[in-house]
Amino acid sequence: MTATTRAGTPAGTPAGSPVDRPVDVPSGEPARVPTPEPGDQRLARLSLNQKTVDRWSLREAIDGCLERGLPAIGVWREPVAEVGLGTAARWLADAGIRVSSVCRAGFFTTADPAEGRRRHDDNLRAIDETAELTAACLVLVPGGLPEGDRDISSARARATDAIAALVPHARDRGVRLAIEPMHPIFAADRGVVSTLEQALDITEPFPSDVVGVVVDTFHVWWEPGVLQQIARAAGRIASYQVCEWITPLPADALLSRGMMGDGHIDFASLTSAVAAAGYPGDIEVEIFNAEVWAAPGSEVLATSARRYVELVQPHL
Amino acid sequence: MTATTRAGTPAGTPAGSPVDRPVDVPSGEPARVPTPEPGDQRLARLSLNQKTVDRWSLREAIDGCLERGLPAIGVWREPVAEVGLGTAARWLADAGIRVSSVCRAGFFTTADPAEGRRRHDDNLRAIDETAELTAACLVLVPGGLPEGDRDISSARARATDAIAALVPHARDRGVRLAIEPMHPIFAADRGVVSTLEQALDITEPFPSDVVGVVVDTFHVWWEPGVLQQIARAAGRIASYQVCEWITPLPADALLSRGMMGDGHIDFASLTSAVAAAGYPGDIEVEIFNAEVWAAPGSEVLATSARRYVELVQPHL
Repeated sequence: MTATTRAGTPAGTPAGSPVDRPVDVPSGEPARVPTPEPGDQRLARLSLNQKTVDRWSLREAIDGCLERGLPAIGVWREPVAEVGLGTAARWLADAGIRVSSVCRAGFFTTADPAEGRRRHDDNLRAIDETAELTAACLVLVPGGLPEGDRDISSARARATDAIAALVPHARDRGVRLAIEPMHPIFAADRGVVSTLEQALDITEPFPSDVVGVVVDTFHVWWEPGVLQQIARAAGRIASYQVCEWITPLPADALLSRGMMGDGHIDFASLTSAVAAAGYPGDIEVEIFNAEVWAAPGSEVLATSARRYVELVQPHL
Repeated sequence: MTATTRAGTPAGTPAGSPVDRPVDVPSGEPARVPTPEPGDQRLARLSLNQKTVDRWSLREAIDGCLERGLPAIGVWREPVAEVGLGTAARWLADAGIRVSSVCRAGFFTTADPAEGRRRHDDNLRAIDETAELTAACLVLVPGGLPEGDRDISSARARATDAIAALVPHARDRGVRLAIEPMHPIFAADRGVVSTLEQALDITEPFPSDVVGVVVDTFHVWWEPGVLQQIARAAGRIASYQVCEWITPLPADALLSRGMMGDGHIDFASLTSAVAAAGYPGDIEVEIFNAEVWAAPGSEVLATSARRYVELVQPHL
């Protein structure tokens, strides 16, 4: 795989000539399908998770969505805070761009009561921010094992309790919490909720419009019975995120996600299952990857749109 | 973490002086417990998986076990083949060292019938080798997704069928097959059986003395409900292997296992569950890690023995 990237074909340039043919990032391979133009109905549910273009500010990400014709965005709290919540909400409303998710709250696993209260308070603020942005959901990353703590069962129990403690405020603010099960590669240091089955078990006591789950292909593709769990999740899917499992795994595990189509995940079966479960929302492209981050944001968006209409959208 | 290593304290050297105190590898930290001497009853079930001392030949590994007082070894087929099966069997018998496992057969997931037959034939040979070595089990590594294949359900079904096809020959030769569920980090490229629950489901149609499972702490520590699955595995545990999940994850995922005590796994609860399930066999230390492999084998054995008597053996 080369790191070569070239500017995408400008609008109006005849396609097909080797020189002007767009190139996918970060693979450096020629694009397999034409880039969908803004207004293309196939883009009607495609959302850009801001983390996919990590070097862009919120303003740049909004402008990138407008230029590429993406109707939705998943925002992160830090870049929103940089410009101020009110400004961010106004920019998004003015642009007519939906907020498919706010990333992220959670990190529930501390065993220290004072730290637990601080986390809870911050999570309440995240709920308020999500309400202010009229976002479809607030993504909850459970958190890993506390330093030196090897008791994963207790950490999981604390996460479950801390989620329950957020439910009243989320309900009052009309915010949907979205528990994100995370690939077991992150069980120690990021997310002790490791399977969709486990996440759904946690949601069960709560109304589905207040507590749902994130189905992220990177995290759940390997799970035995995942298609049955997605069916079980009918009415609970608060966010559907797509990105790829690639091998060899990049050296930094946190940045090991790939562009759809560059790896091992069957987006057809997962997407069909999510559609069959009645998920009506946006589909976020969320990729943490150093090579993706090094590429120009406009090319990342163009490649994401192409791979999405090739691999994901036909199965919705 | 430093890579500093020093020769362990020679037998008879007074312990306690800072200069002569043994140092753990690869952490470079002072040993927390004295090195158990050969003959120490706490070592009665400790086995060295050969891969832990990857630079050693079979002869060196046998001699290392004798010197350190380990009564068992898990051997790999390639180094056995290097000296010849008959020679290996004689060396092991002469040394009075048990063979706790033969690693490894499997790689069942090809969709190509000719390749499938070649794999099957090789797996039959592995069964014969296991019988010849009078080993406690033959470890089955399921294999990953074939090149370009994204259908993990079908790959899992092929693995299940291929295991069933080995059962008659294993039964005839008195060999116990041990299905190794592998951490989902390896689902794409090494092992499509991802949980202990899934492995146990595969064993169910077969007698427990012919088809069992490997419980490897690295692979299963994160699994929701793992303690219940270990209880369910009573009579099916063919091998218990210990090594550690460390963070940050080393750059090469295949070499990401750590020395017990250097990471996040609770060996107490897992070992207690394995003991409560009635597992009567040896406990293998199996560590794939570049720093461990770079350390002198004798120090790896000494550290393994210390960490084992500190963290694992008290819970048997």
